[in-house]
Amino acid sequence: MTNDQFYMNLAIQNAKAMKGQTDPNPLVGAVIVNHNRIVGVGAHLKAGEPHAEIHALRMAGQQAAEGTIYVTLEPCSHHGRTGPCAEAIVKAGLKKVVIAALDPNPIVSGNGVKILQEAGIEVVTGVCEEESRKMNEVFNKYIVEEKPFITLKSGITLDGKIATHTSSSKWITSSEAREDVHKLRSENKAILVGVNTVIHDDPELTARIPNGRNPLRVILDSSLRIPLDVKVVKDEKADTWIFTGNAYDQKKKAILESKGIKVFHTDSKQANVSEVVKILGEHQISSMLIEGGGNVNAAFLEHGLIDKVEIYMAPKLVGGREAPTFMEGNGIAEMSDAVELTDVSVTSIGKDFKFTGYPIYRRLTGSKIPPLQGL
Amino acid sequence: MTNDQFYMNLAIQNAKAMKGQTDPNPLVGAVIVNHNRIVGVGAHLKAGEPHAEIHALRMAGQQAAEGTIYVTLEPCSHHGRTGPCAEAIVKAGLKKVVIAALDPNPIVSGNGVKILQEAGIEVVTGVCEEESRKMNEVFNKYIVEEKPFITLKSGITLDGKIATHTSSSKWITSSEAREDVHKLRSENKAILVGVNTVIHDDPELTARIPNGRNPLRVILDSSLRIPLDVKVVKDEKADTWIFTGNAYDQKKKAILESKGIKVFHTDSKQANVSEVVKILGEHQISSMLIEGGGNVNAAFLEHGLIDKVEIYMAPKLVGGREAPTFMEGNGIAEMSDAVELTDVSVTSIGKDFKFTGYPIYRRLTGSKIPPLQGL
Repeated sequence: MTNDQFYMNLAIQNAKAMKGQTDPNPLVGAVIVNHNRIVGVGAHLKAGEPHAEIHALRMAGQQAAEGTIYVTLEPCSHHGRTGPCAEAIVKAGLKKVVIAALDPNPIVSGNGVKILQEAGIEVVTGVCEEESRKMNEVFNKYIVEEKPFITLKSGITLDGKIATHTSSSKWITSSEAREDVHKLRSENKAILVGVNTVIHDDPELTARIPNGRNPLRVILDSSLRIPLDVKVVKDEKADTWIFTGNAYDQKKKAILESKGIKVFHTDSKQANVSEVVKILGEHQISSMLIEGGGNVNAAFLEHGLIDKVEIYMAPKLVGGREAPTFMEGNGIAEMSDAVELTDVSVTSIGKDFKFTGYPIYRRLTGSKIPPLQGL
Repeated sequence: MTNDQFYMNLAIQNAKAMKGQTDPNPLVGAVIVNHNRIVGVGAHLKAGEPHAEIHALRMAGQQAAEGTIYVTLEPCSHHGRTGPCAEAIVKAGLKKVVIAALDPNPIVSGNGVKILQEAGIEVVTGVCEEESRKMNEVFNKYIVEEKPFITLKSGITLDGKIATHTSSSKWITSSEAREDVHKLRSENKAILVGVNTVIHDDPELTARIPNGRNPLRVILDSSLRIPLDVKVVKDEKADTWIFTGNAYDQKKKAILESKGIKVFHTDSKQANVSEVVKILGEHQISSMLIEGGGNVNAAFLEHGLIDKVEIYMAPKLVGGREAPTFMEGNGIAEMSDAVELTDVSVTSIGKDFKFTGYPIYRRLTGSKIPPLQGL
């Protein structure tokens, strides 16, 4: 580890510690070093409060002058609530700025660096860039595309099944894995399932962990088949939004709305998942967890909408030609066109294994988009 | 690590180095220690040659007296080609014997220990027992049950598929994983597939690695549908045995036999996998790799015949309700009755992951045995 990596790593650790409390702002950390001594440490704590650089500059005081600041994200160039950080760094007289990642927004990316360089400050970029980007993967997507960062979660057997041929599914994974799922739910702004899951399982879709934050519940239901006595309609533990097609029952919609449920209609017969995602983005939903059945999951995959995959795999076998798997739909025709995952990691969790990866969609071009049957 | 473990570990390393050359005998290693110095090392090299203890005793010579011998398997008590090792140890005047695992055959297990103890020698058992048992897992099963140790191998996507819905399957896993499979083939005495695999893929079923030993090719083919122009019938690269039901075509059988193929019939309409396994065992087939489709694999699983599972998982997704998975058949009805794997390990291989585990069948009691459709 170089000195640069050492200091940047400290900045990243400080940034990461604030996970969940900076929303809708990104995680950012900063460290100021002068004559080989750390003279300031900072992190962005909360939206509306100072940026990481400002906290670190205040801690350093006079000792910032002629120093080097390590910051996990390019200092801002805009006049927000705490003024442009790039200008504050210039004013404090630092001689060098080391940046992990540039601003993810291509429209302003590089502007902070420009202000610094024009003031004669040496700027180094790309130190621990990957790690910095990953900790803000949700923010980075939403700020650019105004669409939620979508994580597909599924609990499966080693033979890929999410239930037996008789629909028995309790429990596939260990209690440790299921607790981890509640953490995932708490970290996401929304959770999406298809109406078949609601009809079959009557799930609560809440984050049942200490201090868990319940996500918005999103149901795909093309013809408003949702029963009125299910938990997501009745329990008021979180908001529930239903996305339907263009041929829904007006009366059922009115009943649902009278119960505080929002109903959005999309412009095709089946709820159009791309449109669903767009609408959610417009409503500031920056992240969403999908816990669908095989058809819902496949619809998102085949539209190239899944950003990350979290699969909890239990080392057990159930077999069954009719047993459902977590990725169905029509599927991809050629094995060479399979959607590959990158940055794959496997970790142990209880008796199970957790696979994390990021789909690469470049090969999906030209593949047929299947209809969302039965939603 | 204790001293006992240190010396036993050396004995295990020596034993393991002979993998593939001791057949049908087990891997055994021995180390003799006297006054904290290693005075002898040995391993069983080849059937018909001295046992590990004898090699170690010869190396130690006079220095064996009053020493301790570490041996990975209980010294034999029978008069084989090299005489009972237990008696040789007594004769050499050792004062202590440390054993990893007792003889797997319950009929003779403990007899070697008894000879040693009756001669006044201190005997310790169970040091590194698990590792010693595992390296001889094939031998341990075959010597007791006279049935092959069966390993199920499959190459799958993260969503459990072995092909797309159009039967496209080339290639699921990386070249590194496929090379590992050829090693597996070389280590097994037989390889089994269903006739559908033969018809669809026309596989060679050989071990295509340097010094690879081609296994016996075993085909399940209940009604002798196998084409005569496929590689396993024509290429003479290894023997091919076909197992059929009780309603096969006598003429086709005669043709196959004229080409050097052995045809066995079992006593039910579909080839009965338990009977297949029994017949193979009677023909000294001590190990078999199954590379079947979902129905063949499920038949072996549901009969409780799979001893070990080796799954090569590629981090990619193809989806498809109709895409085949590696474990089909009727399947298990209740998730709580799933066949769990024990001793599960996950390793990286190329871009893929290899899952190894051992099915536990205790919960399968009473489950219905499905017919082997279409084989």
